[in-house]
Amino acid sequence: MADRYEIAIVGSGPAGLSAAINAKIRNKKFIIFGSRKLSSKLVKAHEVNNYPGFFGKSGLKIADAFKEHLKAMDIQITEQKVTNVYNMGSYYSLLTKEGMYEADAVILASGVNFGQPFKGEKEFLGKGVSYCATCDALFYRGKTAAVIGFSPKDEEEAEFLAQVAKKVYYIPMYKEEIHVDDSIQVIHDQIVKIAGDDADARVEKLILANMEISLDGVFILRESVAADQLIPGLRVEDNHVCADRLMKTNLAGCFAAGDIVGKPYQYIKAAGEGNIAALSAVSYLDEKKRQAF
Amino acid sequence: MADRYEIAIVGSGPAGLSAAINAKIRNKKFIIFGSRKLSSKLVKAHEVNNYPGFFGKSGLKIADAFKEHLKAMDIQITEQKVTNVYNMGSYYSLLTKEGMYEADAVILASGVNFGQPFKGEKEFLGKGVSYCATCDALFYRGKTAAVIGFSPKDEEEAEFLAQVAKKVYYIPMYKEEIHVDDSIQVIHDQIVKIAGDDADARVEKLILANMEISLDGVFILRESVAADQLIPGLRVEDNHVCADRLMKTNLAGCFAAGDIVGKPYQYIKAAGEGNIAALSAVSYLDEKKRQAF
Repeated sequence: MADRYEIAIVGSGPAGLSAAINAKIRNKKFIIFGSRKLSSKLVKAHEVNNYPGFFGKSGLKIADAFKEHLKAMDIQITEQKVTNVYNMGSYYSLLTKEGMYEADAVILASGVNFGQPFKGEKEFLGKGVSYCATCDALFYRGKTAAVIGFSPKDEEEAEFLAQVAKKVYYIPMYKEEIHVDDSIQVIHDQIVKIAGDDADARVEKLILANMEISLDGVFILRESVAADQLIPGLRVEDNHVCADRLMKTNLAGCFAAGDIVGKPYQYIKAAGEGNIAALSAVSYLDEKKRQAF
Repeated sequence: MADRYEIAIVGSGPAGLSAAINAKIRNKKFIIFGSRKLSSKLVKAHEVNNYPGFFGKSGLKIADAFKEHLKAMDIQITEQKVTNVYNMGSYYSLLTKEGMYEADAVILASGVNFGQPFKGEKEFLGKGVSYCATCDALFYRGKTAAVIGFSPKDEEEAEFLAQVAKKVYYIPMYKEEIHVDDSIQVIHDQIVKIAGDDADARVEKLILANMEISLDGVFILRESVAADQLIPGLRVEDNHVCADRLMKTNLAGCFAAGDIVGKPYQYIKAAGEGNIAALSAVSYLDEKKRQAF
Protein backbone atom coordinates (compact mmCIF):
# COMPACT_ATOMS: atom_id res chain seq x y z
CA MET A 1 0.00 0.00 0.00
CA ALA A 2 1.18 3.45 -0.84
CA ASP A 3 2.36 5.82 1.87
CA ARG A 4 -0.33 8.39 2.59
CA TYR A 5 0.51 12.02 3.35
CA GLU A 6 -1.59 15.10 3.97
CA ILE A 7 0.53 17.22 1.65
CA ALA A 8 2.94 16.20 -1.10
CA ILE A 9 5.27 18.90 -2.38
CA VAL A 10 6.84 18.41 -5.80
CA GLY A 11 10.06 20.40 -6.13
CA SER A 12 12.79 21.65 -3.81
CA GLY A 13 13.51 25.13 -5.09
CA PRO A 14 12.57 28.21 -3.02
CA ALA A 15 8.83 27.62 -3.58
CA GLY A 16 8.90 23.97 -2.49
CA LEU A 17 11.13 24.68 0.52
CA SER A 18 8.98 27.54 1.68
CA ALA A 19 5.91 25.30 1.37
CA ALA A 20 7.67 22.53 3.34
CA ILE A 21 8.68 24.92 6.14
CA ASN A 22 5.07 26.00 6.55
CA ALA A 23 3.67 22.47 6.31
CA LYS A 24 6.09 21.55 9.11
CA ILE A 25 5.10 24.53 11.27
CA ARG A 26 1.46 23.58 10.77
CA ASN A 27 2.17 20.02 11.88
CA LYS A 28 1.04 18.39 8.68
CA LYS A 29 2.23 14.97 7.57
CA PHE A 30 4.01 15.93 4.38
CA ILE A 31 6.62 14.77 1.90
CA ILE A 32 8.81 16.93 -0.31
CA PHE A 33 10.26 15.48 -3.51
CA GLY A 34 13.33 17.06 -5.01
CA SER A 35 17.07 17.20 -4.77
CA ARG A 36 19.19 17.56 -1.66
CA LYS A 37 21.10 20.11 -3.74
CA LEU A 38 17.77 22.00 -3.72
CA SER A 39 17.51 23.66 -7.13
CA SER A 40 19.98 23.50 -10.00
CA LYS A 41 18.91 26.99 -11.02
CA LEU A 42 19.48 28.44 -7.55
CA VAL A 43 22.94 27.00 -6.98
CA LYS A 44 24.06 28.26 -10.39
CA ALA A 45 23.07 31.87 -9.65
CA HIS A 46 26.18 34.02 -9.51
CA GLU A 47 24.78 36.75 -7.32
CA VAL A 48 21.31 37.35 -5.96
CA ASN A 49 20.49 40.86 -4.76
CA ASN A 50 16.74 40.89 -4.46
CA TYR A 51 16.05 38.31 -1.79
CA PRO A 52 15.43 40.72 1.11
CA GLY A 53 17.86 40.03 3.91
CA PHE A 54 20.58 38.56 1.68
CA PHE A 55 22.49 41.17 -0.26
CA GLY A 56 25.22 40.26 -2.72
CA LYS A 57 25.15 36.57 -1.89
CA SER A 58 25.68 33.82 -4.43
CA GLY A 59 22.94 31.31 -5.10
CA LEU A 60 25.15 28.72 -3.41
CA LYS A 61 25.32 30.81 -0.21
CA ILE A 62 21.55 31.24 -0.18
CA ALA A 63 21.12 27.52 -0.79
CA ASP A 64 23.39 26.91 2.24
CA ALA A 65 21.14 29.14 4.38
CA PHE A 66 18.12 27.23 3.10
CA LYS A 67 19.77 23.89 3.91
CA GLU A 68 20.57 25.10 7.41
CA HIS A 69 16.94 26.16 7.79
CA LEU A 70 15.72 22.71 6.69
CA LYS A 71 18.18 21.02 9.04
CA ALA A 72 17.08 23.16 12.00
CA MET A 73 13.49 22.14 11.34
CA ASP A 74 14.36 18.49 10.64
CA ILE A 75 12.92 18.50 7.12
CA GLN A 76 14.23 15.80 4.77
CA ILE A 77 13.96 15.95 1.03
CA THR A 78 12.94 12.72 -0.72
CA GLU A 79 15.28 12.44 -3.69
CA GLN A 80 12.85 11.01 -6.19
CA LYS A 81 11.51 12.46 -9.40
CA VAL A 82 7.75 12.62 -9.63
CA THR A 83 6.79 11.58 -13.14
CA ASN A 84 3.02 11.48 -12.88
CA VAL A 85 0.35 12.77 -10.55
CA TYR A 86 -3.16 11.38 -10.74
CA ASN A 87 -6.24 13.11 -9.41
CA MET A 88 -8.10 10.30 -7.62
CA GLY A 89 -11.07 12.48 -6.69
CA SER A 90 -10.55 12.82 -2.95
CA TYR A 91 -6.76 12.46 -3.02
CA TYR A 92 -3.79 12.40 -5.38
CA SER A 93 -1.46 9.55 -6.37
CA LEU A 94 2.12 10.44 -7.15
CA LEU A 95 4.32 8.15 -9.14
CA THR A 96 8.11 8.06 -8.95
CA LYS A 97 10.31 5.35 -10.30
CA GLU A 98 10.86 4.18 -6.72
CA GLY A 99 7.19 3.86 -5.91
CA MET A 100 3.73 5.24 -5.43
CA TYR A 101 2.69 7.89 -2.88
CA GLU A 102 -0.67 9.26 -1.88
CA ALA A 103 -1.56 12.71 -0.59
CA ASP A 104 -4.72 14.62 0.24
CA ALA A 105 -3.26 17.78 -1.25
CA VAL A 106 -0.47 18.43 -3.73
CA ILE A 107 1.74 21.48 -4.17
CA LEU A 108 3.42 21.70 -7.55
CA ALA A 109 6.66 23.62 -7.30
CA SER A 110 8.78 21.91 -9.89
CA GLY A 111 9.79 24.99 -11.85
CA VAL A 112 9.33 25.67 -15.49
CA ASN A 113 10.64 23.93 -18.55
CA PHE A 114 12.16 26.45 -20.84
CA GLY A 115 12.46 23.93 -23.64
CA GLN A 116 9.58 23.17 -25.96
CA PRO A 117 8.34 19.58 -26.03
CA PHE A 118 9.66 17.52 -28.94
CA LYS A 119 7.48 17.24 -32.01
CA GLY A 120 5.14 14.32 -31.48
CA GLU A 121 5.81 14.17 -27.73
CA LYS A 122 2.35 15.27 -26.61
CA GLU A 123 0.52 13.32 -29.31
CA PHE A 124 2.18 10.02 -28.38
CA LEU A 125 2.25 10.47 -24.61
CA GLY A 126 1.01 7.15 -23.18
CA LYS A 127 1.25 5.61 -26.64
CA GLY A 128 4.94 4.91 -26.58
CA VAL A 129 6.15 8.17 -25.06
CA SER A 130 6.87 7.99 -21.33
CA TYR A 131 8.71 10.04 -18.71
CA CYS A 132 9.86 7.16 -16.53
CA ALA A 133 11.85 4.27 -17.94
CA THR A 134 11.93 2.25 -14.73
CA CYS A 135 8.16 2.59 -14.25
CA ASP A 136 7.30 1.33 -17.72
CA ALA A 137 10.30 -0.87 -18.44
CA LEU A 138 8.34 -4.12 -18.19
CA PHE A 139 6.13 -3.12 -21.11
CA TYR A 140 9.26 -3.12 -23.25
CA ARG A 141 10.34 -6.72 -22.69
CA GLY A 142 11.79 -7.88 -26.00
CA LYS A 143 11.14 -4.51 -27.61
CA THR A 144 13.17 -1.56 -28.81
CA ALA A 145 13.22 1.84 -27.12
CA ALA A 146 15.17 5.06 -27.00
CA VAL A 147 16.01 6.98 -23.85
CA ILE A 148 16.56 10.72 -24.21
CA GLY A 149 18.70 11.72 -21.23
CA PHE A 150 19.15 15.23 -19.84
CA SER A 151 21.74 14.55 -17.16
CA PRO A 152 24.24 11.78 -16.31
CA LYS A 153 21.89 10.33 -13.70
CA ASP A 154 19.53 9.33 -16.51
CA GLU A 155 22.09 6.77 -17.70
CA GLU A 156 20.99 4.53 -14.84
CA GLU A 157 17.45 4.42 -16.19
CA ALA A 158 18.70 3.44 -19.63
CA GLU A 159 20.69 0.61 -18.05
CA PHE A 160 17.69 -0.65 -16.13
CA LEU A 161 15.62 -0.63 -19.31
CA ALA A 162 18.38 -2.45 -21.18
CA GLN A 163 18.01 -5.40 -18.80
CA VAL A 164 14.55 -6.17 -20.17
CA ALA A 165 14.33 -4.54 -23.59
CA LYS A 166 15.76 -6.13 -26.72
CA LYS A 167 17.55 -2.98 -27.79
CA VAL A 168 18.07 0.41 -26.13
CA TYR A 169 19.35 3.60 -27.75
CA TYR A 170 20.63 6.34 -25.47
CA ILE A 171 20.49 9.88 -26.81
CA PRO A 172 22.14 12.34 -24.41
CA MET A 173 21.08 16.01 -24.45
CA TYR A 174 24.10 17.01 -22.32
CA LYS A 175 27.82 17.33 -22.85
CA GLU A 176 29.32 15.21 -20.07
CA GLU A 177 31.01 11.93 -20.97
CA ILE A 178 28.63 8.96 -21.22
CA HIS A 179 29.04 5.82 -19.12
CA VAL A 180 26.52 3.15 -20.07
CA ASP A 181 26.62 -0.59 -20.59
CA ASP A 182 28.04 -1.75 -23.92
CA SER A 183 24.70 -3.23 -24.90
CA ILE A 184 23.27 0.28 -25.14
CA GLN A 185 23.86 2.18 -28.36
CA VAL A 186 24.72 5.82 -27.69
CA ILE A 187 23.71 8.27 -30.40
CA HIS A 188 24.74 11.90 -30.46
CA ASP A 189 22.22 13.61 -32.65
CA GLN A 190 19.39 16.12 -32.63
CA ILE A 191 15.78 15.09 -32.13
CA VAL A 192 13.56 16.10 -35.04
CA LYS A 193 10.33 14.23 -34.39
CA ILE A 194 8.65 11.31 -32.67
CA ALA A 195 6.48 9.65 -35.29
CA GLY A 196 3.84 6.97 -35.82
CA ASP A 197 1.49 5.99 -38.61
CA ASP A 198 -0.97 8.57 -37.38
CA ALA A 199 -1.54 10.37 -34.08
CA ASP A 200 -3.96 7.63 -32.89
CA ALA A 201 -1.43 4.89 -33.42
CA ARG A 202 1.60 4.13 -31.28
CA VAL A 203 5.13 5.43 -31.72
CA GLU A 204 6.93 3.73 -34.59
CA LYS A 205 10.05 5.73 -35.12
CA LEU A 206 12.26 8.46 -33.86
CA ILE A 207 13.49 10.83 -36.53
CA LEU A 208 16.87 12.43 -35.80
CA ALA A 209 18.69 15.05 -37.83
CA ASN A 210 20.98 12.41 -39.35
CA MET A 211 19.08 9.12 -39.07
CA GLU A 212 15.80 7.41 -38.30
CA ILE A 213 15.34 4.71 -35.65
CA SER A 214 12.48 2.19 -35.77
CA LEU A 215 11.29 1.55 -32.22
CA ASP A 216 8.38 0.87 -29.86
CA GLY A 217 8.94 3.54 -27.24
CA VAL A 218 10.70 6.80 -26.39
CA PHE A 219 11.58 7.77 -22.81
CA ILE A 220 12.09 11.47 -22.26
CA LEU A 221 13.83 12.07 -18.92
CA ARG A 222 13.68 15.85 -18.51
CA GLU A 223 14.56 17.20 -15.08
CA SER A 224 10.96 18.27 -14.55
CA VAL A 225 7.93 17.14 -16.43
CA ALA A 226 5.78 19.86 -18.02
CA ALA A 227 2.89 20.65 -15.73
CA ASP A 228 0.06 19.70 -18.06
CA GLN A 229 1.72 16.36 -18.70
CA LEU A 230 2.32 15.79 -14.98
CA ILE A 231 -1.37 15.93 -13.97
CA PRO A 232 -4.12 15.23 -16.47
CA GLY A 233 -6.83 17.91 -16.31
CA LEU A 234 -4.66 20.64 -14.84
CA ARG A 235 -5.33 23.99 -16.47
CA VAL A 236 -2.19 25.33 -18.12
CA GLU A 237 -1.70 28.42 -20.28
CA ASP A 238 1.48 29.36 -22.15
CA ASN A 239 3.42 26.57 -20.46
CA HIS A 240 2.41 27.79 -16.94
CA VAL A 241 -0.06 26.35 -14.46
CA CYS A 242 -3.05 28.68 -13.96
CA ALA A 243 -3.23 29.65 -10.29
CA ASP A 244 -5.05 32.38 -8.42
CA ARG A 245 -3.58 34.68 -5.78
CA LEU A 246 -4.07 31.95 -3.17
CA MET A 247 -2.12 29.56 -5.43
CA LYS A 248 -5.15 27.36 -6.12
CA THR A 249 -5.26 25.59 -9.47
CA ASN A 250 -8.44 24.44 -11.21
CA LEU A 251 -8.17 21.08 -9.38
CA ALA A 252 -9.42 21.01 -5.78
CA GLY A 253 -6.55 20.19 -3.44
CA CYS A 254 -3.91 20.95 -6.05
CA PHE A 255 -1.86 24.09 -5.51
CA ALA A 256 1.11 25.50 -7.41
CA ALA A 257 3.89 27.95 -6.60
CA GLY A 258 7.07 29.35 -8.07
CA ASP A 259 8.24 29.50 -11.67
CA ILE A 260 5.65 26.87 -12.64
CA VAL A 261 2.82 29.43 -12.27
CA GLY A 262 4.56 32.11 -14.29
CA LYS A 263 6.86 35.09 -14.29
CA PRO A 264 8.59 36.81 -12.70
CA TYR A 265 11.08 33.96 -12.21
CA GLN A 266 12.44 35.16 -8.89
CA TYR A 267 13.48 33.40 -5.68
CA ILE A 268 11.63 35.68 -3.30
CA LYS A 269 8.47 35.53 -5.40
CA ALA A 270 8.71 31.72 -5.42
CA ALA A 271 9.32 31.57 -1.65
CA GLY A 272 6.34 33.86 -1.03
CA GLU A 273 4.10 31.74 -3.21
CA GLY A 274 5.27 28.55 -1.52
CA ASN A 275 4.17 30.05 1.78
CA ILE A 276 0.75 30.93 0.40
CA ALA A 277 0.34 27.52 -1.29
CA ALA A 278 1.13 25.67 1.95
CA LEU A 279 -1.29 27.74 4.00
CA SER A 280 -3.97 27.33 1.33
CA ALA A 281 -3.37 23.57 1.42
CA VAL A 282 -3.69 23.63 5.23
CA SER A 283 -7.02 25.48 4.93
CA TYR A 284 -8.15 22.95 2.32
CA LEU A 285 -7.29 20.02 4.62
CA ASP A 286 -9.00 21.66 7.61
CA GLU A 287 -12.11 22.30 5.54
CA LYS A 288 -12.13 18.71 4.30
CA LYS A 289 -11.91 17.42 7.87
CA ARG A 290 -14.75 19.69 8.97
CA GLN A 291 -16.93 18.36 6.15
CA ALA A 292 -16.16 14.77 7.12
CA PHE A 293 -17.94 15.24 10.44
CA MET B 1 6.11 71.79 -8.40
CA ALA B 2 5.84 68.32 -6.99
CA ASP B 3 8.73 65.89 -7.26
CA ARG B 4 8.02 63.36 -10.01
CA TYR B 5 9.00 59.69 -9.66
CA GLU B 6 8.47 56.65 -11.84
CA ILE B 7 7.38 54.53 -8.88
CA ALA B 8 6.12 55.55 -5.44
CA ILE B 9 6.03 52.81 -2.81
CA VAL B 10 3.78 53.34 0.21
CA GLY B 11 4.97 51.27 3.17
CA SER B 12 8.28 49.94 4.47
CA GLY B 13 7.41 46.47 5.68
CA PRO B 14 8.70 43.38 3.83
CA ALA B 15 6.46 44.05 0.81
CA GLY B 16 7.53 47.68 0.40
CA LEU B 17 11.22 46.88 0.92
CA SER B 18 11.15 44.04 -1.54
CA ALA B 19 9.48 46.35 -4.08
CA ALA B 20 12.11 49.04 -3.45
CA ILE B 21 14.99 46.60 -3.91
CA ASN B 22 13.61 45.58 -7.29
CA ALA B 23 12.83 49.15 -8.36
CA LYS B 24 16.46 49.97 -7.57
CA ILE B 25 17.82 46.98 -9.49
CA ARG B 26 15.67 47.99 -12.45
CA ASN B 27 17.08 51.54 -12.31
CA LYS B 28 13.76 53.23 -11.78
CA LYS B 29 13.44 56.65 -10.17
CA PHE B 30 11.45 55.71 -7.10
CA ILE B 31 10.55 56.86 -3.62
CA ILE B 32 9.59 54.69 -0.66
CA PHE B 33 7.49 56.15 2.15
CA GLY B 34 7.58 54.55 5.56
CA SER B 35 9.57 54.33 8.73
CA ARG B 36 13.30 53.86 9.12
CA LYS B 37 12.32 51.32 11.76
CA LEU B 38 10.70 49.50 8.82
CA SER B 39 7.56 47.88 10.19
CA SER B 40 6.20 48.03 13.72
CA LYS B 41 4.71 44.58 13.21
CA LEU B 42 7.98 43.05 12.05
CA VAL B 43 10.15 44.41 14.85
CA LYS B 44 7.67 43.19 17.44
CA ALA B 45 7.76 39.58 16.17
CA HIS B 46 9.31 37.37 18.81
CA GLU B 47 10.51 34.62 16.50
CA VAL B 48 10.05 34.07 12.79
CA ASN B 49 10.64 30.57 11.47
CA ASN B 50 9.14 30.61 8.02
CA TYR B 51 11.21 33.17 6.20
CA PRO B 52 13.42 30.74 4.24
CA GLY B 53 17.06 31.34 5.06
CA PHE B 54 16.39 32.77 8.54
CA PHE B 55 15.54 30.15 11.09
CA GLY B 56 14.69 31.03 14.67
CA LYS B 57 15.47 34.72 14.28
CA SER B 58 13.56 37.50 15.98
CA GLY B 59 11.71 40.09 13.92
CA LEU B 60 14.31 42.59 15.08
CA LYS B 61 17.16 40.47 13.69
CA ILE B 62 15.40 40.10 10.35
CA ALA B 63 14.74 43.84 10.31
CA ASP B 64 18.49 44.36 10.87
CA ALA B 65 19.26 42.15 7.88
CA PHE B 66 16.74 44.14 5.82
CA LYS B 67 18.32 47.43 6.93
CA GLU B 68 21.75 46.16 5.95
CA HIS B 69 20.35 45.16 2.58
CA LEU B 70 18.89 48.65 2.05
CA LYS B 71 22.15 50.26 3.11
CA ALA B 72 24.19 48.09 0.73
CA MET B 73 21.90 49.21 -2.10
CA ASP B 74 21.82 52.84 -0.98
CA ILE B 75 18.04 52.91 -0.58
CA GLN B 76 16.67 55.62 1.71
CA ILE B 77 13.23 55.55 3.25
CA THR B 78 11.30 58.82 3.20
CA GLU B 79 9.81 59.11 6.69
CA GLN B 80 6.50 60.63 5.75
CA LYS B 81 3.00 59.26 6.08
CA VAL B 82 1.00 59.19 2.86
CA THR B 83 -2.51 60.30 3.71
CA ASN B 84 -4.07 60.48 0.26
CA VAL B 85 -3.32 59.19 -3.21
CA TYR B 86 -5.13 60.67 -6.19
CA ASN B 87 -5.46 58.96 -9.53
CA MET B 88 -4.69 61.78 -12.00
CA GLY B 89 -5.35 59.65 -15.06
CA SER B 90 -1.83 59.23 -16.41
CA TYR B 91 -0.07 59.52 -13.04
CA TYR B 92 -0.72 59.57 -9.29
CA SER B 93 -0.43 62.37 -6.76
CA LEU B 94 0.57 61.42 -3.23
CA LEU B 95 -0.08 63.71 -0.33
CA THR B 96 1.89 63.72 2.90
CA LYS B 97 1.84 66.41 5.52
CA GLU B 98 5.27 67.50 4.30
CA GLY B 99 4.25 67.86 0.69
CA MET B 100 2.98 66.54 -2.60
CA TYR B 101 4.66 63.90 -4.74
CA GLU B 102 3.90 62.57 -8.18
CA ALA B 103 4.55 59.12 -9.60
CA ASP B 104 3.70 57.26 -12.79
CA ALA B 105 3.00 54.10 -10.83
CA VAL B 106 2.14 53.42 -7.20
CA ILE B 107 2.71 50.34 -5.09
CA LEU B 108 0.52 50.13 -2.00
CA ALA B 109 2.25 48.15 0.72
CA SER B 110 1.01 49.87 3.85
CA GLY B 111 -0.29 46.81 5.63
CA VAL B 112 -3.74 46.18 6.93
CA ASN B 113 -5.76 48.00 9.53
CA PHE B 114 -7.16 45.54 11.98
CA GLY B 115 -9.39 48.15 13.56
CA GLN B 116 -12.76 49.05 12.13
CA PRO B 117 -13.32 52.66 11.07
CA PHE B 118 -15.21 54.78 13.58
CA LYS B 119 -18.94 55.17 13.10
CA GLY B 120 -19.47 58.13 10.80
CA GLU B 121 -15.84 58.16 9.63
CA LYS B 122 -16.50 57.07 6.05
CA GLU B 123 -19.69 59.14 5.69
CA PHE B 124 -18.01 62.37 6.73
CA LEU B 125 -14.65 61.83 5.03
CA GLY B 126 -13.85 65.12 3.26
CA LYS B 127 -16.76 66.75 5.08
CA GLY B 128 -14.95 67.38 8.33
CA VAL B 129 -13.15 64.07 8.69
CA SER B 130 -9.51 64.16 7.57
CA TYR B 131 -6.41 62.00 7.96
CA CYS B 132 -3.85 64.81 7.96
CA ALA B 133 -4.09 67.72 10.39
CA THR B 134 -1.17 69.65 8.95
CA CYS B 135 -2.53 69.36 5.40
CA ASP B 136 -5.95 70.71 6.25
CA ALA B 137 -5.12 72.92 9.26
CA LEU B 138 -5.72 76.18 7.39
CA PHE B 139 -9.36 75.26 6.81
CA TYR B 140 -9.78 75.29 10.59
CA ARG B 141 -8.69 78.84 11.29
CA GLY B 142 -10.90 80.07 14.11
CA LYS B 143 -12.71 76.74 14.28
CA THR B 144 -12.90 73.78 16.64
CA ALA B 145 -11.48 70.36 15.87
CA ALA B 146 -10.55 67.10 17.56
CA VAL B 147 -7.41 65.09 16.82
CA ILE B 148 -7.59 61.35 17.47
CA GLY B 149 -4.00 60.25 17.97
CA PHE B 150 -2.66 56.70 17.71
CA SER B 151 0.94 57.28 18.75
CA PRO B 152 2.95 60.00 20.56
CA LYS B 153 4.18 61.41 17.24
CA ASP B 154 0.62 62.51 16.48
CA GLU B 155 0.84 65.07 19.31
CA GLU B 156 2.92 67.24 17.00
CA GLU B 157 0.07 67.45 14.52
CA ALA B 158 -2.35 68.50 17.23
CA GLU B 159 0.05 71.27 18.26
CA PHE B 160 0.40 72.51 14.71
CA LEU B 161 -3.39 72.59 14.36
CA ALA B 162 -3.71 74.44 17.68
CA GLN B 163 -1.69 77.33 16.24
CA VAL B 164 -4.49 78.17 13.82
CA ALA B 165 -7.68 76.63 15.23
CA LYS B 166 -9.72 78.29 17.95
CA LYS B 167 -9.91 75.11 20.02
CA VAL B 168 -8.29 71.68 19.72
CA TYR B 169 -9.22 68.50 21.59
CA TYR B 170 -6.68 65.69 21.66
CA ILE B 171 -8.03 62.19 22.15
CA PRO B 172 -5.23 59.64 22.49
CA MET B 173 -5.86 55.99 21.57
CA TYR B 174 -2.58 54.92 23.24
CA LYS B 175 -1.32 54.56 26.76
CA GLU B 176 1.88 56.61 26.81
CA GLU B 177 1.95 59.89 28.73
CA ILE B 178 0.71 62.87 26.72
CA HIS B 179 2.85 65.95 26.12
CA VAL B 180 0.91 68.69 24.35
CA ASP B 181 0.62 72.45 24.66
CA ASP B 182 -1.62 73.66 27.49
CA SER B 183 -4.02 75.20 24.99
CA ILE B 184 -4.98 71.71 23.86
CA GLN B 185 -7.60 69.88 25.85
CA VAL B 186 -6.70 66.23 26.32
CA ILE B 187 -9.66 63.85 26.68
CA HIS B 188 -9.33 60.22 27.64
CA ASP B 189 -12.50 58.59 26.42
CA GLN B 190 -13.88 56.12 23.91
CA ILE B 191 -15.09 57.20 20.48
CA VAL B 192 -18.72 56.29 19.88
CA LYS B 193 -19.62 58.18 16.73
CA ILE B 194 -18.80 61.10 14.45
CA ALA B 195 -22.08 62.86 13.74
CA GLY B 196 -23.71 65.61 11.71
CA ASP B 197 -27.23 66.67 10.93
CA ASP B 198 -27.39 64.12 8.16
CA ALA B 199 -24.79 62.27 6.09
CA ASP B 200 -24.79 65.01 3.41
CA ALA B 201 -23.99 67.72 5.91
CA ARG B 202 -20.64 68.36 7.58
CA VAL B 203 -19.42 67.01 10.90
CA GLU B 204 -21.06 68.75 13.83
CA LYS B 205 -20.15 66.73 16.83
CA LEU B 206 -18.05 63.92 18.19
CA ILE B 207 -19.91 61.58 20.51
CA LEU B 208 -17.76 59.92 23.17
CA ALA B 209 -18.78 57.34 25.74
CA ASN B 210 -18.98 59.99 28.47
CA MET B 211 -19.52 63.28 26.66
CA GLU B 212 -20.33 65.02 23.38
CA ILE B 213 -18.12 67.66 21.74
CA SER B 214 -19.47 70.23 19.28
CA LEU B 215 -16.88 70.78 16.56
CA ASP B 216 -16.12 71.44 12.89
CA GLY B 217 -13.62 68.72 12.17
CA VAL B 218 -12.16 65.41 13.33
CA PHE B 219 -8.62 64.35 12.42
CA ILE B 220 -7.99 60.62 12.61
CA LEU B 221 -4.25 59.91 12.59
CA ARG B 222 -4.08 56.13 12.25
CA GLU B 223 -0.70 54.65 11.41
CA SER B 224 -1.95 53.61 8.00
CA VAL B 225 -5.00 54.81 6.20
CA ALA B 226 -7.47 52.15 5.06
CA ALA B 227 -6.86 51.36 1.42
CA ASP B 228 -10.22 52.42 0.04
CA GLN B 229 -9.93 55.72 1.85
CA LEU B 230 -6.37 56.21 0.61
CA ILE B 231 -7.23 56.13 -3.11
CA PRO B 232 -10.73 56.92 -4.34
CA GLY B 233 -11.93 54.30 -6.81
CA LEU B 234 -9.69 51.50 -5.63
CA ARG B 235 -11.52 48.17 -5.48
CA VAL B 236 -11.52 46.80 -1.95
CA GLU B 237 -13.27 43.74 -0.52
CA ASP B 238 -13.42 42.77 3.15
CA ASN B 239 -10.93 45.49 4.08
CA HIS B 240 -8.36 44.23 1.52
CA VAL B 241 -7.31 45.67 -1.83
CA CYS B 242 -8.35 43.40 -4.71
CA ALA B 243 -5.23 42.37 -6.64
CA ASP B 244 -4.53 39.65 -9.15
CA ARG B 245 -1.55 37.30 -9.14
CA LEU B 246 0.58 39.98 -10.78
CA MET B 247 -0.42 42.38 -7.96
CA LYS B 248 -2.42 44.63 -10.29
CA THR B 249 -5.37 46.45 -8.77
CA ASN B 250 -8.39 47.70 -10.72
CA LEU B 251 -6.57 51.02 -11.32
CA ALA B 252 -3.98 51.06 -14.14
CA GLY B 253 -0.55 51.79 -12.71
CA CYS B 254 -1.61 51.03 -9.16
CA PHE B 255 -0.23 47.83 -7.64
CA ALA B 256 -0.53 46.40 -4.14
CA ALA B 257 1.45 43.88 -2.09
CA GLY B 258 1.62 42.41 1.38
CA ASP B 259 -1.00 42.32 4.11
CA ILE B 260 -3.01 45.01 2.32
CA VAL B 261 -4.09 42.50 -0.36
CA GLY B 262 -5.10 39.82 2.11
CA LYS B 263 -4.09 36.79 4.09
CA PRO B 264 -1.90 34.99 4.83
CA TYR B 265 -0.23 37.80 6.81
CA GLN B 266 3.32 36.52 6.44
CA TYR B 267 6.68 38.21 5.84
CA ILE B 268 7.84 35.93 3.06
CA LYS B 269 4.50 36.19 1.28
CA ALA B 270 4.67 39.98 1.54
CA ALA B 271 8.27 40.06 0.29
CA GLY B 272 7.37 37.83 -2.65
CA GLU B 273 4.42 40.01 -3.57
CA GLY B 274 6.55 43.16 -3.30
CA ASN B 275 8.90 41.64 -5.85
CA ILE B 276 6.04 40.85 -8.22
CA ALA B 277 4.44 44.29 -7.75
CA ALA B 278 7.71 46.08 -8.57
CA LEU B 279 8.31 44.02 -11.69
CA SER B 280 4.70 44.52 -12.77
CA ALA B 281 5.17 48.26 -12.26
CA VAL B 282 8.35 48.15 -14.35
CA SER B 283 6.46 46.37 -17.15
CA TYR B 284 3.70 48.96 -16.89
CA LEU B 285 6.21 51.83 -17.20
CA ASP B 286 7.97 50.18 -20.14
CA GLU B 287 4.66 49.63 -21.90
CA LYS B 288 3.66 53.25 -21.30
CA LYS B 289 6.94 54.48 -22.78
CA ARG B 290 6.47 52.25 -25.81
CA GLN B 291 3.00 53.68 -26.39
CA ALA B 292 4.31 57.22 -26.09
CA PHE B 293 6.39 56.77 -29.27
